[in-house]
Amino acid sequence: MKIYGDLGSGNCLKVKWTADKLGLPYTWVPVDIMKGGARTTEFAAMNPALQTPTVDFGGGKYLAQSNAIIRYLARGSALLPDDAWTQAKVDEWLFWEQYSHEPNVATCRFHMHPNYLGKPKETRDPGKVERGEKALDLMDKHLAGRAFLVGDTLTIADIALVAYTRLAHEGGFELSSRPNVRKWIAASEQHLNLN
Amino acid sequence: MKIYGDLGSGNCLKVKWTADKLGLPYTWVPVDIMKGGARTTEFAAMNPALQTPTVDFGGGKYLAQSNAIIRYLARGSALLPDDAWTQAKVDEWLFWEQYSHEPNVATCRFHMHPNYLGKPKETRDPGKVERGEKALDLMDKHLAGRAFLVGDTLTIADIALVAYTRLAHEGGFELSSRPNVRKWIAASEQHLNLN
Repeated sequence: MKIYGDLGSGNCLKVKWTADKLGLPYTWVPVDIMKGGARTTEFAAMNPALQTPTVDFGGGKYLAQSNAIIRYLARGSALLPDDAWTQAKVDEWLFWEQYSHEPNVATCRFHMHPNYLGKPKETRDPGKVERGEKALDLMDKHLAGRAFLVGDTLTIADIALVAYTRLAHEGGFELSSRPNVRKWIAASEQHLNLN
Repeated sequence: MKIYGDLGSGNCLKVKWTADKLGLPYTWVPVDIMKGGARTTEFAAMNPALQTPTVDFGGGKYLAQSNAIIRYLARGSALLPDDAWTQAKVDEWLFWEQYSHEPNVATCRFHMHPNYLGKPKETRDPGKVERGEKALDLMDKHLAGRAFLVGDTLTIADIALVAYTRLAHEGGFELSSRPNVRKWIAASEQHLNLN
């Protein structure tokens, strides 16, 4: 498979980490979204939504949406346990990530990071800051006494959430007061060999 | 199961329609989000994210996130075909809906609808209007020559997307120039016995 993505994007890294963890072979095709790399006619033919990551599985089979991709890659593996209820709780986190976490935490990082918009912390959208803080608080509370988000092992819920949570400081969010989140980031990074 | 939701919310209706279509028995527990019904201590104990819909399956099992819920309810049914690739394409639409459609189309409706914020069309967020128009355009293009979003039968992808697309006009969006979307709405409504 060919993964079209940007190594600076948490959404794209989710797919890389999942493939690496599962030992799936792939070709990484760099897309520079800041230079319109996802707005070409060729890219639109793969994914009309013009979003990275997009995966080409060959034979005209393309898949977009980071969490849909990692769910597909992880099927039948320990990253997505077979039990239906466990999968439902994993899905709950995946949808929450894309609705309540990424649009706030990742968007503030995109706003501030020198590789993207590079704007000052003070100019962040106040609504996104407030919702990002709340999202991180919710995670810290949930992770009290828990090693991972769902069950006792690393799942794609952790992969999806750790992608931008570990970069939260780049969006002006403070993790020092969220010890459970920090401990979970360290454990997830270790399981994914990110350090 | 008990479904906690608001019959005016597309996200909540997705769960009702899926349960109805599958003949699953449930109790509907009305939650008035405009009166803080999802911000009580009791509600927070079920769903710390304070969002509707939330489903109580009994025995301490709670599930939130509309698309996670309908995916769980539909498992093993014709609404979620068993093939892994088909499920991946359904998931792609489910995540796209929550990231690129609902935050724009549904949020504009929430802004304008008299039961919610009741504000004038002219005061909608221009970014949300632009992204909502793009989302509806993408759907119309995809639905050309197709009866449903994925494959030849109604799936939870259609249920998730039709929820707010059929109400797009209430958010100031025009469907007259999107004939494929209108045809698909009519077909989906017929399959779900909504009229």
